[in-house]
Amino acid sequence: MTSHGQPDTYVLGVDSGGSGLRVALGTAGADAPLATVACGGPVRTGPRGIDAAHLLDQVLPAVRGLLDGHAPGGRITAAAVGAAGMATLGDGLRAELPGALADALGVRRIALAADAVTAYAGAVGQRPGAVVAAGTGLIALGTDLTEWRRADGWGHLLGDSGGGAWIGRAGLDAAMRAYDGRRGGSRALLARLEAVFGPPQELPGLLYPRADRPALLASFAPEVAVCADRDPVAAGILREAAAHIAEAAAAVCPEAEADEDGYEVALTGGLFRMGEPLLVPLREELAQLLPRARAVPGSGDPLIGALRIAQALDTGGLRLPRHPTLLCVPAPGPRS
Amino acid sequence: MTSHGQPDTYVLGVDSGGSGLRVALGTAGADAPLATVACGGPVRTGPRGIDAAHLLDQVLPAVRGLLDGHAPGGRITAAAVGAAGMATLGDGLRAELPGALADALGVRRIALAADAVTAYAGAVGQRPGAVVAAGTGLIALGTDLTEWRRADGWGHLLGDSGGGAWIGRAGLDAAMRAYDGRRGGSRALLARLEAVFGPPQELPGLLYPRADRPALLASFAPEVAVCADRDPVAAGILREAAAHIAEAAAAVCPEAEADEDGYEVALTGGLFRMGEPLLVPLREELAQLLPRARAVPGSGDPLIGALRIAQALDTGGLRLPRHPTLLCVPAPGPRS
Repeated sequence: MTSHGQPDTYVLGVDSGGSGLRVALGTAGADAPLATVACGGPVRTGPRGIDAAHLLDQVLPAVRGLLDGHAPGGRITAAAVGAAGMATLGDGLRAELPGALADALGVRRIALAADAVTAYAGAVGQRPGAVVAAGTGLIALGTDLTEWRRADGWGHLLGDSGGGAWIGRAGLDAAMRAYDGRRGGSRALLARLEAVFGPPQELPGLLYPRADRPALLASFAPEVAVCADRDPVAAGILREAAAHIAEAAAAVCPEAEADEDGYEVALTGGLFRMGEPLLVPLREELAQLLPRARAVPGSGDPLIGALRIAQALDTGGLRLPRHPTLLCVPAPGPRS
Repeated sequence: MTSHGQPDTYVLGVDSGGSGLRVALGTAGADAPLATVACGGPVRTGPRGIDAAHLLDQVLPAVRGLLDGHAPGGRITAAAVGAAGMATLGDGLRAELPGALADALGVRRIALAADAVTAYAGAVGQRPGAVVAAGTGLIALGTDLTEWRRADGWGHLLGDSGGGAWIGRAGLDAAMRAYDGRRGGSRALLARLEAVFGPPQELPGLLYPRADRPALLASFAPEVAVCADRDPVAAGILREAAAHIAEAAAAVCPEAEADEDGYEVALTGGLFRMGEPLLVPLREELAQLLPRARAVPGSGDPLIGALRIAQALDTGGLRLPRHPTLLCVPAPGPRS
């Protein structure tokens, strides 16, 4: 049953990320999805950014399969598509996807969201607050429900400070310092480098020709965490990462909106699975920079966030601020 | 006249770098080259590393032209080829170049050197000491004339700490922090970013698709120097770069070899054209880490270094240590 009291209508959340595409089917009333499915690898990008046709080719059969299996005869009334790179790569998607979804599924209410926004919606919901979404990269997004504030997310050469690639790169730098006999080196990290990658002098030849350099750097971040309890250089790297994460959170927090209870800073994404070696210094840095904030694990992932946006859209209750690239809600098309 | 007392014999220095190929013709006795010529763009690299045939295709006509113009009837008795990437990319060159040079020019004594070694030979000569060669990247090389010590030169993701790409990246990071409102930002550097690259939020789209990302990062290093006299963040970046440069020098210095006068640390490469904003903190950091070292500008560039190695080879007086990848001197072929 939907909140409109009409049976047979459903909402759709789509999460298109670097590691693949997932779809969730839900109803406007229920918090949890009816069903979710992973439906293919990363969506191609072309000269106009994310390839809308390639996305649809993967999403539409998955949606029809979900409807057939879980809601025979049902129709989709609202959909939200969250995509990595929407802010910079979403021109093609914004131009083509709403019409195509309307044509193919009869969906009239559609939202296109940057993955940081679906991360926010999944982790925080429709309240004021902030999210730090961190994996290989790192971005912080906050809102007072009037406007969005964004910090970092600039990629491994311009920022993503404190994210997985940043931590891994700092760890490899410290390992190479030890190999050279330079100040600031860590023999513990050098031993991990040798165990993971082989001879240090051959690491440049392994790393630079690859297209997925940030991911390779990030793959070393857990080694830094492993060394942190006995190696001061590794612990220092995580302390500095924690400071950068807190700085990004502080730049986007809606301080003015905080009531007596303060407000939540949700931490979401694979980086925080690193656990206490990162979370202990992070809680300390957050306490110093944002004394009224409560750091909490995000309650839902970006797919759940996309579904929540679609649910809110369906009931006319979307409180998150519209934004040309972060959260774009085209006017509904004519009823099909 | 050569040192063998035979007229008509000459020596050859070749410098193959990222920005192109240069050749110098000299005699064993005279310090300065008879003539130098630039002869083409960067040498191709293939699966076996630097492409020996492509290098020869450009070098041989240039050598014949130099001989015709400056030493008609002369012949080359010794040659030294310095190449960027020799340490990691030189397998093909080491296998093919000596025989090919012997066949084409009758050269019997040949040295193949990493560009850091030709930088050393150009800047320091055949004495114990150390060189820091810095442009987009940064490498330090030192010797007590028994063995080489190398530090850094690991590329922009693993090190090159304090080099041009490192300084430029740190400057852009500080600019993006100011744009976000994060701690550690510099409004002066943000203004320079906007003047040079345009809207900050479009910089990731400009940078990441390019193949020459390190060069683009390094192009921002002079902007950091320009801001340093009035902006503490920019000054802090150059102070940290200076510390990294001193750390690399300290890791390779032949401390035990120093006589009462101490020893020289030669600073060579385009980075040091940045001048006082970098050199003032660098002299301070060197004085602290290496109190017996004298920082000096390198006397000659890598092309002059290659020529000096060829001269020393010709007279049997090469004192710089042999090394499988840094300075490789194959046994002389049969006299042609």
